[in-house]
Amino acid sequence: MSQLVPPHGGKGLVIRLLEGAEREAELKKAASLKKVEITAQEKGDAIMIGIGGFSPLEGFMTKADWKSVCENFTLADGTFWPVPVMLSCSKEDAAEIKAGQEVTLERNGEIYATMQVTDIFELTEDEKKWESEMVYKGAGEDSQGDFMKIALEDHPGVQMVMARKEFCLAGPIKVLSEGDYPTNPKYMGTYLRPAETRKIFDERGWKNVAALQLRNPMHRSHEHLCKIAIDVCDGVIIHSLIGNLKPGDIPAEVRLKCIDTLVKGYFVEEKVVQGGYPLDMRYAGPREALLHATFRQNYGVNKMIIGRDHAGVGDFYTLFEAQEIFDRIPYSTPEEKQKVGGKALLCEPLKIDWTFYCFKCDGMASMRTCPHTKEDRVILSGTKLRKALSEGAEVPDHFGREEVLTILRAYYEGLTEKVEIKMQKAASGADMK
Amino acid sequence: MSQLVPPHGGKGLVIRLLEGAEREAELKKAASLKKVEITAQEKGDAIMIGIGGFSPLEGFMTKADWKSVCENFTLADGTFWPVPVMLSCSKEDAAEIKAGQEVTLERNGEIYATMQVTDIFELTEDEKKWESEMVYKGAGEDSQGDFMKIALEDHPGVQMVMARKEFCLAGPIKVLSEGDYPTNPKYMGTYLRPAETRKIFDERGWKNVAALQLRNPMHRSHEHLCKIAIDVCDGVIIHSLIGNLKPGDIPAEVRLKCIDTLVKGYFVEEKVVQGGYPLDMRYAGPREALLHATFRQNYGVNKMIIGRDHAGVGDFYTLFEAQEIFDRIPYSTPEEKQKVGGKALLCEPLKIDWTFYCFKCDGMASMRTCPHTKEDRVILSGTKLRKALSEGAEVPDHFGREEVLTILRAYYEGLTEKVEIKMQKAASGADMK
Repeated sequence: MSQLVPPHGGKGLVIRLLEGAEREAELKKAASLKKVEITAQEKGDAIMIGIGGFSPLEGFMTKADWKSVCENFTLADGTFWPVPVMLSCSKEDAAEIKAGQEVTLERNGEIYATMQVTDIFELTEDEKKWESEMVYKGAGEDSQGDFMKIALEDHPGVQMVMARKEFCLAGPIKVLSEGDYPTNPKYMGTYLRPAETRKIFDERGWKNVAALQLRNPMHRSHEHLCKIAIDVCDGVIIHSLIGNLKPGDIPAEVRLKCIDTLVKGYFVEEKVVQGGYPLDMRYAGPREALLHATFRQNYGVNKMIIGRDHAGVGDFYTLFEAQEIFDRIPYSTPEEKQKVGGKALLCEPLKIDWTFYCFKCDGMASMRTCPHTKEDRVILSGTKLRKALSEGAEVPDHFGREEVLTILRAYYEGLTEKVEIKMQKAASGADMK
Repeated sequence: MSQLVPPHGGKGLVIRLLEGAEREAELKKAASLKKVEITAQEKGDAIMIGIGGFSPLEGFMTKADWKSVCENFTLADGTFWPVPVMLSCSKEDAAEIKAGQEVTLERNGEIYATMQVTDIFELTEDEKKWESEMVYKGAGEDSQGDFMKIALEDHPGVQMVMARKEFCLAGPIKVLSEGDYPTNPKYMGTYLRPAETRKIFDERGWKNVAALQLRNPMHRSHEHLCKIAIDVCDGVIIHSLIGNLKPGDIPAEVRLKCIDTLVKGYFVEEKVVQGGYPLDMRYAGPREALLHATFRQNYGVNKMIIGRDHAGVGDFYTLFEAQEIFDRIPYSTPEEKQKVGGKALLCEPLKIDWTFYCFKCDGMASMRTCPHTKEDRVILSGTKLRKALSEGAEVPDHFGREEVLTILRAYYEGLTEKVEIKMQKAASGADMK
């Protein structure tokens, strides 16, 4: 019998992905249905719903769910849920769709799902602003003053909310494609469905499983978080976002190669699972940390590592806001959890402070364990690191593993070459004029 | 309101220590009662009962409790308890005491407690052997084959059981002295009663408190255990045994000085409490690990760090037997705990593997996190360390902190000097003959 935490919502894994003949039949039907073009984020959300990663969701949210999630962190039925999962469409599309109708969700000519539309509703600009404030506004500097003004310029999550079309479609979906996640070699076989990670954890006899959320290359500070978790849990899944990031972030294939190299050289392999999940980043800071814990529960994880500025962007969130929010959500005490059963979030945060190498400590340390000064510590901002790597400059000792830095240097050199080739082409093009 | 784990047994802290006028009156009475000389171990147990460290115990155990503890890990009333807490007396003393009578417990002329004797019973040699097998026999090599034969030679815990006198006295006690623990400067103010540690934890707003059990000087492996706990809990009490150890072990005053030096140089002080508790070591391995968790719960601790060969001696226990036993005791599941309430042990083990410095990891690591070979690791047996320190030889880099090693070297130099002085005295004595 599995010792793992049950999926969120108390209904087991809610799988909406069709396979085999059932899928074939649905695909045939889908071809003749009204088509709705979806965004990259919606595609990721649909796949997550399909594979049970968003259990107990069966589809995209109604207005009642949307409102309740924004206001109360719960679906309309009281089940914990931290962020809206919306499917938008244009006014023109909405006018052609009636409640009860089936539609096909596609993107770039590929069919991802069919949807049994139960509700069609408008979300006005003001409502989307309200959602942005409720979901994305934090306690950080950028959230103070005129939040919406700053967010519209600098918050990719809010920008995505505001860019949604005027209407929303709600209803259960049947998922027909996982895109290229299962097959594209660039994902290095890390794309695992919740049922698959659960099977791996069960086979290893794990009960307490931690997850490290990663959207950046893995340096020693992440390695340290991970190893603390390995020391106090049965094992860890290094779970990379393999959906879309904001421009300038490092692509999945490079990040996954870094992780694999790090795991092979510096981890006890049987304590680690490398996984990837198909969502786009929302950059919702504290709310997204909750989402990370929620879907991790479906993957079989009961300890979500939450470090410094988890899922943050700019200065919208304070450094440990994503840790603190876990104490303020509905059903956060053992008594409440007991009372509401499956409606509560059961995956708990494993809160860890800012970590770094410290020369006086003679190893990795955190703000909670190291009493020394910043002169003793190796701390490097992402910006400075990118600069060093792309200029071929030295990265300070003890910051990252050499094998990982080598991969990153090669990636940045490649980028530089691409830019040079482009410039050469532009130059020769200019010559040819 | 305190967020700490409640004391064990569901009755709050059961304090049997008298103070002020009440103590004066009881002392006066005690002088006229029948006197029973107690052992060092019994003195430590009495003080722990006095200060509530052994809550819910009010005194020494009856035969029914003794039998149930040995067989079932519970008192006769079903409350979890892992080791017998016995007071023995000679056949001659027993003959002079009747049930219902009060006696005075003293040691080396000092009165420690009075006891309302409720039961007087014999424990035969065979019964003490049975107790030894039930409580002290482990899965290690020395426990195989003729356990009692090996144990009688090499197990200080079993030797203490077998050395107990023929009869036992059971009944509640009133404690009248804590010995020199509160006042002797050699304990450096670390002797804290459970009510005091709880107050400190409460003042710091702690909820999840870990304890590191120490009976040896603190090296980097202990520091690492401690820092893992600090990273995942609110704080740690470094809780040293300041009662008696076996010959050759390092005395409390030296160990406490090492800890204080280490904490001041290498810890964030507000995350650490230095404490001492007045028990003698029983060396009962797994059963003693359970005792450590049980009384730590009374001190306000809900996470007991259990490392490699916790409370072990010789090869009587396998390396992680003291971790595994926590899964086999009564009421070990959340459901059972819920059902029996205060009778269950609520302080949980924080199980951590063997830790060491690893050159390839470039820092501290554990068998769970480090994939490298023993050539990469700094591992030193206690025996080799003592040899290096006492001979003034170098201790390998990264094994201990220099400031701590300096204290230990000075201690061993002092020992050597004492030996030399003794030898000189002996020599000059010989000359004078």
